Amino acid sequence: MSNPAPIGVFDSGIGGLTVVHEIMRQLPHESIVYFGDTARVPYGNKGPETVQRYSREIADFLESQGVKAIVIACNTATAHALPMLRAERALPVIGVVEPGARAAVAASRSGAIGVIGTLGTVKSGAYDRAIHALRPDARVAGQACPLFVPLVEEGWTDRAATRLVADEYLEPLVHEHVDTLVLGCTHYPLLKPLLHELLGPTVRLIDSAEETAAETARVLRDRGLEAPAGAVPVHRFFCSDEPSRFLALGQRFLGRAIDRVESHPLG
Amino acid sequence: MSNPAPIGVFDSGIGGLTVVHEIMRQLPHESIVYFGDTARVPYGNKGPETVQRYSREIADFLESQGVKAIVIACNTATAHALPMLRAERALPVIGVVEPGARAAVAASRSGAIGVIGTLGTVKSGAYDRAIHALRPDARVAGQACPLFVPLVEEGWTDRAATRLVADEYLEPLVHEHVDTLVLGCTHYPLLKPLLHELLGPTVRLIDSAEETAAETARVLRDRGLEAPAGAVPVHRFFCSDEPSRFLALGQRFLGRAIDRVESHPLG
Repeated sequence: MSNPAPIGVFDSGIGGLTVVHEIMRQLPHESIVYFGDTARVPYGNKGPETVQRYSREIADFLESQGVKAIVIACNTATAHALPMLRAERALPVIGVVEPGARAAVAASRSGAIGVIGTLGTVKSGAYDRAIHALRPDARVAGQACPLFVPLVEEGWTDRAATRLVADEYLEPLVHEHVDTLVLGCTHYPLLKPLLHELLGPTVRLIDSAEETAAETARVLRDRGLEAPAGAVPVHRFFCSDEPSRFLALGQRFLGRAIDRVESHPLG
Repeated sequence: MSNPAPIGVFDSGIGGLTVVHEIMRQLPHESIVYFGDTARVPYGNKGPETVQRYSREIADFLESQGVKAIVIACNTATAHALPMLRAERALPVIGVVEPGARAAVAASRSGAIGVIGTLGTVKSGAYDRAIHALRPDARVAGQACPLFVPLVEEGWTDRAATRLVADEYLEPLVHEHVDTLVLGCTHYPLLKPLLHELLGPTVRLIDSAEETAAETARVLRDRGLEAPAGAVPVHRFFCSDEPSRFLALGQRFLGRAIDRVESHPLG
């Protein structure tokens, strides 16, 4: 059994391309339709109902493109809208929080796990619940890092100012002696070198992109939705604002060139 | 002749409350309906067409509330959407760019004027045009400062990290020996003490809020739209995301307590 339809992937903007990068690497025959909601980005400090409304509109758009599964490549949208989309839709919906929590629990020796993310993700408690479901005695310390997204989008991933900001955000987590840190926002993998340097080699950094791609592979396999062997994939990129900024910044997140971005205004 | 209808004021979020503060001070009898587009904030790095679409929707909402004039209390929306709204609407539309340019030209001795703002405002060239229309030999140096808005929204108006960011942004303007700096974003007045300290006492900081309120007063007077003498003003605040964050942050921008914020989802 196989299915040549594309996988739909969405994010508030360009951060989800770090997840697309991993899906392309692990599932090279799968076609992808990506939607970045660049006209309404960021989601991180917006209310749950607003993020749910946006997520529903994007899922409708992806379904209209004939996708066979939806990957929510955005931590805030996963935290606020995953249960809703799963309840509403017939196709499989995969988020980034459960895979990230699984990888964190597997990596942690002490059970002291830090989670950094947007205000929305941290306040939602989604990671706490997902981690405790797997390891009830885990101690989870959450820290919202609202300045990280704009710093990464400016390309300031290794500046003195970014170091000062990171030092302040990480301080409570260092104090908690976490041995594992979940990068609970798809922008944060670009800060890995800086975070690694500040936290030292004993703290494992968990980037949920890899585990989310693995989960997507498992779901497609279990449901007989894999692309036919030898299929030539087609990758399409849409965004809700004009495509120029997406094109300019996207390649840094995707780790490869993007030829074309299509505009699909929403909101 | 007088008109008791409210003035409509809008911004991408809460920054426009610095303009509302000045309107309340200069026009204490005028009622105000404020709309902050917190579900889609920020506008600063979004494309002109997206910002025009949002501005049109908000103007429709304000007109549905019976306003007698519209103040665009957002530099990016003024830069992208003021000519369009003026052409489309029968009521007077006032922006922040012309008043800011006028104040800058009046303040500058040398004619070397710096403008800081969002990417959208600086790229639009709106301040350059407005300043050159008043003083053709002015030398205008624009600098986009995309990290200032998130830093102000986090309340980091006097941190070491903010100083480093400001130092880097201001360096080209210091190099140009500007004697006047337009704060071309309604969030920036909260950075005045830091900017003043970094630039020294010889550089005049122009906050367009005061001049925009004065322009609003002139327009209402010229068209016979002033509130009746002794009118008791009513101030209503709307936002497109949930009101909690608006309530929490808004008072810092308005400089007084906000009792109630109404939700009006858009987008």
